Amino acid sequence: MLAIDAARLTRRLAELARFGALPGGGVTRSCWSPAYEGARAWLLGEIRAAGLAPWVDGAGNVFGAIGIDRVGVERPVVLTGSHIDTVPEGGTLDGALGVIAGLECLQTIVENKATPRCPLAVAAWSDEEGRYGSLFGSRAFCGLLDVARIPEMAAVDGEKLVDVMRRAGFDPARVPEARAPAGAVAAYVELHIEQGPRLEEAGVEIGVVQAIVGVRRSRIIFHGQADHAGTTPMARRRDAFLGGAEYALRAREHVVTHGSAVSVTNIGVVYVHPGASNIVPGRAELVHEMRDPDAAVLERLWTECREIAEGVARERQLRVEIRPTSATVPALCSPTIQAAVETVCAKLGHSTQRMDSAAGHDAQNLAAVTEAGMIFIPSVGGKSHRTDETSDPRAIERGANVLLHTLLTLAT
Amino acid sequence: MLAIDAARLTRRLAELARFGALPGGGVTRSCWSPAYEGARAWLLGEIRAAGLAPWVDGAGNVFGAIGIDRVGVERPVVLTGSHIDTVPEGGTLDGALGVIAGLECLQTIVENKATPRCPLAVAAWSDEEGRYGSLFGSRAFCGLLDVARIPEMAAVDGEKLVDVMRRAGFDPARVPEARAPAGAVAAYVELHIEQGPRLEEAGVEIGVVQAIVGVRRSRIIFHGQADHAGTTPMARRRDAFLGGAEYALRAREHVVTHGSAVSVTNIGVVYVHPGASNIVPGRAELVHEMRDPDAAVLERLWTECREIAEGVARERQLRVEIRPTSATVPALCSPTIQAAVETVCAKLGHSTQRMDSAAGHDAQNLAAVTEAGMIFIPSVGGKSHRTDETSDPRAIERGANVLLHTLLTLAT
Repeated sequence: MLAIDAARLTRRLAELARFGALPGGGVTRSCWSPAYEGARAWLLGEIRAAGLAPWVDGAGNVFGAIGIDRVGVERPVVLTGSHIDTVPEGGTLDGALGVIAGLECLQTIVENKATPRCPLAVAAWSDEEGRYGSLFGSRAFCGLLDVARIPEMAAVDGEKLVDVMRRAGFDPARVPEARAPAGAVAAYVELHIEQGPRLEEAGVEIGVVQAIVGVRRSRIIFHGQADHAGTTPMARRRDAFLGGAEYALRAREHVVTHGSAVSVTNIGVVYVHPGASNIVPGRAELVHEMRDPDAAVLERLWTECREIAEGVARERQLRVEIRPTSATVPALCSPTIQAAVETVCAKLGHSTQRMDSAAGHDAQNLAAVTEAGMIFIPSVGGKSHRTDETSDPRAIERGANVLLHTLLTLAT
Repeated sequence: MLAIDAARLTRRLAELARFGALPGGGVTRSCWSPAYEGARAWLLGEIRAAGLAPWVDGAGNVFGAIGIDRVGVERPVVLTGSHIDTVPEGGTLDGALGVIAGLECLQTIVENKATPRCPLAVAAWSDEEGRYGSLFGSRAFCGLLDVARIPEMAAVDGEKLVDVMRRAGFDPARVPEARAPAGAVAAYVELHIEQGPRLEEAGVEIGVVQAIVGVRRSRIIFHGQADHAGTTPMARRRDAFLGGAEYALRAREHVVTHGSAVSVTNIGVVYVHPGASNIVPGRAELVHEMRDPDAAVLERLWTECREIAEGVARERQLRVEIRPTSATVPALCSPTIQAAVETVCAKLGHSTQRMDSAAGHDAQNLAAVTEAGMIFIPSVGGKSHRTDETSDPRAIERGANVLLHTLLTLAT
C-alpha cells in the first residue's frame, strides 16, 4: 500500500521550525513577519522541488498542486492544507504538520504516478492564528472576509495589516482576488494535532472531527481616570485595571458555572495605560475570547458577560467599551469525509474516535463552501500553543498516511 | 519688596512643555529620552541667559548657580530645584515648576544685585519619576545610591539605565562623581504643586510640608502555564493573569481596610505573557507600590501583601516571585525651613497649612544630608500625573515669590 516518506516529512518539519526559532525551543512566527516570509520562500522552494505547481494568491495563501496551476471551476480541486504561522512562543506542529504532511502526500502521489482523476492541492493559509484577524487567508479564499474592513484590521498592539502586507511585498487591494469561484473546491481535508489531551488519554490513534467550535473575541476596554498614585485619596480613584481584574475573575467564573460542559474562555491580552507604577491606571484593555460548539450557548454567554462588564463598570464608576473583533460560527464537518477517514483508518488498522475540535481551524471556513473534514493525531500531554508542543513521530507518520489515503479516496 | 517676573516664568514653563508635548496636551518626557535631552539643552541655555553658572554632574543633574561653579564644602550652597522628567502622559508642572521657579528666583536675585552671603543654586535632578530607579539623581547627589547596582537598573519594559545614559552621551561609570561632599549643602527648599486636592478644598494658598511619605515598590510576578486557550480544559489551566487579577483586588482591599487613614496603594504596570488572545497567560507581572508617612505601617502592610500574594499563588497552583525594586523611607522636613516659609508667607499675606506630602520627592533624599523643606501650591481639582494637570497662574506666581524670599532668608 502507498505510504509517505516519514524521514522526508520529519526533515521538512525540522527545517520549517528554524524560521522564527526561539533559543529554548519553539517558534514565534506571526504571519507577514520576516521569519514568516523566510518560511514562505522556503516552502515555495520545497513545493517546486516536490514537482508541484506553486502559486501565491492575493491574500498570501501559498499553494502547491497536481493537475492545475490555479483554482478554477473547470477542474474542481481536492484540497488539503493548514497554516505555517504560529502564536507567539508557539510550537513546531500546530499548522506546520498539516501543510508539510499535505506536501508530503502530494509528492508521494507524484513520485508513484498515482495521479487520481481530480486535481489535488495543498494550501498554507495566511494568518490562521489571527494576529491581524482570525483565519484571514481561508476567509478570503472562501469569500467570508469583509474586504471593506481590511484597512482597519490591526493587531492588538496597533500594527496594521495593510502595513505588514506591504512590507512583505503584498498589495492589500488584491486580497479580494484570493476568493475562489463557487464550485472550485471538490473537498477539503486538514490534518492537525489535537492540541488537547483527549486522544492521548483515551489511547486512540486518530480523531475524526465532527464539529469545530465557534470562537467569539472582543476587546473589553475599561476607561477610568489616570491620577497620581500618591496624592489621590483611595476613595476618589477610578482605577481601570481593577475593573479589568474584577471582570476577568467574574467572567471566567460565569462561563465555568453557566456554560456547557465544553465552554471555554480566556483573557490572554492585557494592556494597562499609561503604564507607570506611580499613576492610577486610566485605561485597561483586555482581549476576551470564548468558545463553544453550540452557537446558541456562545451567544447567551456573550450577552451575559457583557452584562457583567457593564455591572463592574457601573459599580466602579468606570466606562466600558466592548468591541467585537471576530466571531466564527461553529462548523459541522462533512459526514462523507468522516466516513472516508474512518474507512481508511480501518484499512490501515488505526483506532478512531469522533470528537469536536475545541480550537478554531481554517477547515471551518472551507466547510462553508465545500465538503470539509479534519483528521486529528494525539498531542503529547495535550500541550499546544506553547514551546514544548509535540507529538510522537509514529503518530505523525500515521496521520500523514491517513491523510494520503483519504485524499486518494476523495480524488478518485 | 523683591518679586519674580511672572511673565518670564510663564513663558519658560510653556517653552519647556514643548519637549515631549502630546497632541492632546500634557507631556511624556522620561529621563534620558530624546525629548528629555532636548529639554536639558534648552534649560542649560536658559541658565546661561539668566547669568547663572551652569554645570551637569555625573548623574546628569543640571545646575545653575550664583557665587559658585560647582558644589563644594568651601562655600556651602543654599539649594533649590526639582526635576524636568515626567511620567508617561504627565502634566506640565510636576517638577517643571520647581526648576523653572528656582531659575526665576535666582535670575531675579542676579538682576536686582540682591546677592546674599551664601551661594545659591537651582538643580534639575535626573529621573525623579524613576523610570530606571526612583529619585535617581538626588540619590546619587546625596550618596544614597548603591552604585554597584547601576548596571542592573532597568525600566519595567527591560530598557537598561546604562544604555539610555550612553545614548544620551553620559558615562555610567561617572555617576559616583555626582555625590556631594558632606557639608556642601547649607539648606534645600523645593517648590512643587500639591498633586492632591487638600489645599484647594481648604482654600489655603501655601502648603508647608512636614513629612514626605515613604514609597515601597515591588514587582510581583505570577508564573503559571501557557496553554492553548481552546483545547485545554478549564479545570487544568494555571492562568497567571487570573492570579494577578485576584492579587490586585485583594491587596487593594487589604490596604484600604488595614492601613492608616493615609495609606495608599497602586498597581500601575501590568504585563501579561505571551500576550495572545488564544493562549492562557503563562506569566503576569505587576508593579505594586504602597505609600505611608509611617515606616512601621509601610513595613507591616508590605508583609501582609506578600502573604496575600503567596496565598493566591497557592490556591491557583501558580508560583509567585516578589522582587522589591525600590524603597524610600518617610522623611521629616526641617522645622527651621517650615518656620522660614511661614514667616515669609505671613509677610506676603498668604494663608498656610502644614501637611504631609503623599508623593515622593527629591527633597526626601536631601533631608538625609541637610535641612530640607518643601513649599506646595494648590493643584486644580487635585489632578496630577495626567495631561490636564494645572494650577492657577496666580498660585504659581505666589509660590515662586514665597520660594524667592525663603531662599533669601536661608542664604542671608
